[in-house]
Parts: sequence; structure tokens; C-alpha cells
Amino acid sequence: MNIEDTLIMIPGPVPVVPRILRAMAKPVINHRGEEFADLFGECRALFADMFQTKNDILLLSGSGTSGMEAAVGNLINRDETVVTPVNGKFGERFRDIGRLYGNAVPIESEWGYPIDLDRVAAALEEGADAVAMVHNETSVGMLNPAKEVGKLARKHDALFIMDGITSIGGSEVLVDEWGVDIAILGSQKCIGAPPGFAAVSVSKRAFEKMEDVHTFPYYLDLKAHKKSADKGQTPYTPSIPLFYAVQEALRIAHEEGLPARMQRHAAGAAAVRAAAGAMGIEMFPEPDELSGYSDTVTAMKVPPGIAFDQMKKEMLAHKILIAGGQAHLKGNIFRIGSMGNFGPKDILITIQMLESVLHRHGVVSDFGAGIEAAGSVLAA
Amino acid sequence: MNIEDTLIMIPGPVPVVPRILRAMAKPVINHRGEEFADLFGECRALFADMFQTKNDILLLSGSGTSGMEAAVGNLINRDETVVTPVNGKFGERFRDIGRLYGNAVPIESEWGYPIDLDRVAAALEEGADAVAMVHNETSVGMLNPAKEVGKLARKHDALFIMDGITSIGGSEVLVDEWGVDIAILGSQKCIGAPPGFAAVSVSKRAFEKMEDVHTFPYYLDLKAHKKSADKGQTPYTPSIPLFYAVQEALRIAHEEGLPARMQRHAAGAAAVRAAAGAMGIEMFPEPDELSGYSDTVTAMKVPPGIAFDQMKKEMLAHKILIAGGQAHLKGNIFRIGSMGNFGPKDILITIQMLESVLHRHGVVSDFGAGIEAAGSVLAA
Repeated sequence: MNIEDTLIMIPGPVPVVPRILRAMAKPVINHRGEEFADLFGECRALFADMFQTKNDILLLSGSGTSGMEAAVGNLINRDETVVTPVNGKFGERFRDIGRLYGNAVPIESEWGYPIDLDRVAAALEEGADAVAMVHNETSVGMLNPAKEVGKLARKHDALFIMDGITSIGGSEVLVDEWGVDIAILGSQKCIGAPPGFAAVSVSKRAFEKMEDVHTFPYYLDLKAHKKSADKGQTPYTPSIPLFYAVQEALRIAHEEGLPARMQRHAAGAAAVRAAAGAMGIEMFPEPDELSGYSDTVTAMKVPPGIAFDQMKKEMLAHKILIAGGQAHLKGNIFRIGSMGNFGPKDILITIQMLESVLHRHGVVSDFGAGIEAAGSVLAA
Repeated sequence: MNIEDTLIMIPGPVPVVPRILRAMAKPVINHRGEEFADLFGECRALFADMFQTKNDILLLSGSGTSGMEAAVGNLINRDETVVTPVNGKFGERFRDIGRLYGNAVPIESEWGYPIDLDRVAAALEEGADAVAMVHNETSVGMLNPAKEVGKLARKHDALFIMDGITSIGGSEVLVDEWGVDIAILGSQKCIGAPPGFAAVSVSKRAFEKMEDVHTFPYYLDLKAHKKSADKGQTPYTPSIPLFYAVQEALRIAHEEGLPARMQRHAAGAAAVRAAAGAMGIEMFPEPDELSGYSDTVTAMKVPPGIAFDQMKKEMLAHKILIAGGQAHLKGNIFRIGSMGNFGPKDILITIQMLESVLHRHGVVSDFGAGIEAAGSVLAA
């Protein structure tokens, strides 16, 4: 029997609530008509509030990665340089995209360790044209110092691209205050819509720079998107069902209010961290004072005495899906998402199942401490 | 009152039947799991049947244009040449994409007139690396000679890219027999799914060529897609609801059977042409013996005595949407789609409304001839 009731507690794609699923079943409308222009305009306005920006919002029918490529591909020429701080899998993605479109200068830290801001500053000092950083690095459960990198970029007159795919709408992101020239959000993350859609905010100086860039992607040409957006359209056929889903997701977020939404995400992650602490499970990342633990995903070391595959299997038998580590972290860490339209009971049942599994395997001796710690945080 | 009952008779996006709309409302699943691999595998197999190919099928979360860019962008280097026959808007798109990735040699005809095969042959003779042609040029309602261009490409050892976005699944397309190295389909056209998804078939020699191409798009890197597809995955998060919709759309097409489906499309367009003839409305395109009228959209000249906007407005008042012309053809032509999961009654009511409007404006004197002509074709 599959009644499609698995609780997905991974760092996206997150579960989609029925209200959003239903929105997708509306008829396809003419994407060159007024009805689409209204839908499009409402999404752009609600995203601008969520990004805390006055910049233009453009909407792409593609996953978050398409937004990352749009940002880098539209802003640098072949002979130009983008600095890409890397402390996880998605930082590597910016590095790889940078190499396809120009010169990438990766500033690599060990995964889960802070970005070296001095080396970022030095690379910018040498005349880099842009810096592209992941704000919330889900592969290691860490928030990178976007505000500080924004300051450095501004000081050296470089453009600042920020992957906010898994932070915007969940964690605090102040696009204008931080000086983010292009910020990117993915639909299947904090806003709780299905995957396949990205939103980007684009500053005036980013648009100005694009006029001098001669090698850029076609489907993701942000100049073409801007030109069409000014007429309430997209340059190529948009994915109408995803636009409906995103509209509904943004309305839900608007009803909740951004401060309450950020608080809910922060509390979810804090509850997972508290439970881990009570169960003697170590956090994976090592943030410093300028970085931090992610609000939307908690990455922990797999405790001695159990293998990750076993943990995952036993939790899945109770219909809860957690995430493992990516690349070389496979088997070493596990991750629990607190992302999208989750509620306290989703966190609590996940912790309960985790504690039960670990207790059964003798990893946790004192059953109940984790549940209690998580409950205390969520009750606060 | 808006009960969302407008009949959309444009050349895509086409109306989505309830069975497909419902499929999208299933829960989002883990895109790295077995359940997704099954969904993905079924879609690839059903597409291979539809494309009539043994080539690999790759699935992109992006519109048809993303498929066009994937084809050109992965196959030519900056210093290489792609021949792009142009006799309408989408041929121009291949030309523009070609210019971004390498050298484009456009072979331009007047819109709606046949491609000059001698000039295509001459350009290939000069050593072009690829030719990229639109099979069904919806902007002018015309089928271009894909089989002949395939032969020319093979003869000159060039790769053949074919935009089958609006033909595959509606018109006859024989990817292997015609020697198409990359063929592209868009979800919102003949298969009747929502927009935002493209399928491409890729030949062995196309994959081989890609190994020597150094400037390619990232999100649309077909080598990365192939590598993931071999594991039942996509390289970046796929749009799960669109995959569900496409799966259902492909099952519907499979139930109908490809020959019956092609026959239904051909009959729909033939009925529109017969009705137009009976009402004294001229066809817009001027096909020769190697090209033809489109099976999925019929482009007609706006008859003297009425403006297109007036026609459109009066038909829309009765909840039927028809399409006008694009670019310089705006106001000069109008287009009626026979695409996707339409039925005879959709064609007949569209013709009836068209004839009523034209009769009311004195453009058609003998009311009923158009309806009768269309009915005869569909009854045959």
C-alpha cells in the first residue's frame, strides 16, 4: 500500500501542501494575455517583498541551478574573473559555472569550515569582476557571511551574486542592504512549491554590466527576460502550472508574514540542534562568528555505533525521509531539513523516530532527552 | 463569471485535459530515489517510441527553447558553423542561438516560402559542422523538408538538429530514418501537457561530437544529463509535477496509438483548410512538393472586410481563442491550432464561430459552407 504519506525532511524538494498542489490543476492560460500578466505581476511583487529589495524580479522556468547559470553567464565575459568561495557542493557549482563562462578563482575551504574572507578580499583586490557565493550551503548545513562579502564586493567595485536558493523565504536575506546584485531563489525550497522554477533579483548595475557582456546563455538571457517582463511576459513559454503553484506559495508566505516565517525556520533548526546535543550527536559544520548554522537544514555527524543507511532505512520504514551526505561526506553525515511549510509536529516526530532508532541500536542510552530538548525549543 | 472554459485553439500551449492536470497534484517525491527512476524511465521509453528512435532520450526541465539551445550549444564550438534555414520566427531563433555559440549561416526565405535546399547544400559543401532546422514552423503553418535536409547533412558529414517541438507526437517524424542527431519536443504542444518541459533525442555521433565541444551551457549540458540519465536521474532537480504530467500525457498518446494520433492531427488541419477554402479564405504558406501545410496549425490570410483583432474579440466573446500572426505578420494572418488532445467537436465549433463572425461582417455570404466542408473531412 502506497498512500503517498512519507514525510520528506530533506533540504528540498520539500513536501507541497494540498493548497499549492491544487493550484497547479487550473487550466493552462494564454501566456501572452492579461490574465498571465496579472499572475506574473503578483509573483514579482511578492518576491520583491520576500527578497527585501527594490530591484527587478525575473522568473525562470528552470531549477535553481538555471538561476545560478543565469547570474554568472550574464555578468562575466570570457576574459573576466569571478571569485567563487567554496565550502560545500553548491559553492563548487558556482566555480564550475564560472569556468564555463570566464575565469573562476575558487577560494576553497574544507567543506563545513568558514569562507576565508581575507582571501576573498585579496582576489577582489587583484581586480576580479564579480564574486559568486552560496548563502546557505545545504551540503554542510552552514550559513555563509553574505553581508560581509557584499561589503567587500562593493568596496572593490565588483558585482555580488548570491545563491539564496535555500535561504530566501526561510532565513533573513536583505538583498538591498547587503548589496546583492543578483540573488537567486528556488521554488522547491523555503517557499514550499514544487521544483522547476527560479526567481532572481537583478540590480541596476547588473543590468548595466550585461550590456557589455557578449557571451551569455540564450534561454537564460536576463536582458531578454527583463524586456519581456516590462510587458508582463516571459521571452519563452513559461511553465504555467509552476507559476500557479508559486503564486499560491507566495500568498501563503505573505499570510504568515516574513518575520514569523523566519522565526519558524530558525526554531525548527534550533530544535533539531538541541535534540542532537541532548543525544550526544555532534554538529558537522564549524561556523565562526561571521557564519552560522543553517536555519533550514541541520547537518550532523553520523554517531558511532550505527551506519547512515541503517538509520535512513529504519526511519523510512516509519515513513520519514532524512538526507545523507553528498560526495565525500556520504556515510559521514546526515541532514534534517526544517524548510518550507513544515510545522512543529513534523520536527517532533522526526526527532522521536531518530531517537527511537538510535536507542534501539544502543547509540542513545537515555531515551527521551532528544524529544524533550526539541520540545522545549519549539514551545518557547 | 470566469469558469475557465475558454477553448484554446492556438498552436500551443494547448488545453490540458483533466486526467493530466490531476496527475500533477501527486506529492513531490525524492528525485534521487527509485520511484523517480521508474517515472523517468517510463517517460524516456515512451518518448523513444514517439520519436521513432533508438537514440537516447534526455528530459529537460525547461521550455522547448531550452531544448533548441541544448542542441546547438552542445554541438558547436565558437569557431564552428551551423547552417540555419529560416522561413519563420522559430528558424530565426535557431539562427540567434547559433550566433551566440558559434557562426550561424542563415539560409533565409521569405516567411511562409520553402527552404532553399540548394543553398543549404552549398553551405554544407563549404564545410559547415551542423544544420539546425525547424520541422513544423508554426509561425507560418508550414512543414519543412526534414527528410531531405537529413540526407544532405549525412552526405556532408554534418550533424542534423531538428526542432520537432510542434510536430513530434502529431505529425510523422522518423528520427532514425531521417538521420536526426538531436530532435526536440516541447511538452505543451502535440502531447498536450503543460509548458515547461522539453525532451531531446541524441544520437551516438552527437554524443561523440560533444566530447570535443568546449563552450557549452551548464544547466543544459547534455553530457551531464546523459551521465545522470544512465543512473535514472537528472543532474539538477527536475520539475516533478511536469514529469508526472508528461508521463500521463505519454500514456494517453500510447493508448491512442501513434498512427491514430497522427491521423487525427492531419484530419484536424485538413478540416480547417477545407473550411477556409469553402469560405474563400486563402492559406498563408506557399509549400512546394517537398514541404507541406502543417498538420498541427493552419495559418490563413485575414480576409478583406474584417480586422484580426475584431475576429479574435468576437470569437473570444464566445470563449474560443485563436492566434494571430507574429512579428511582421501581425494583423495579416490568423492561425488555428489542431494540436494535442483536441477532438472533432473542438475543430467544428471553432469553424462555426469563425463562419458566424465572418458572416456577420459580410465577409462570408453563404453561411454554412465552411461548417459543411470541415464536417465532411472529419466524417471521412
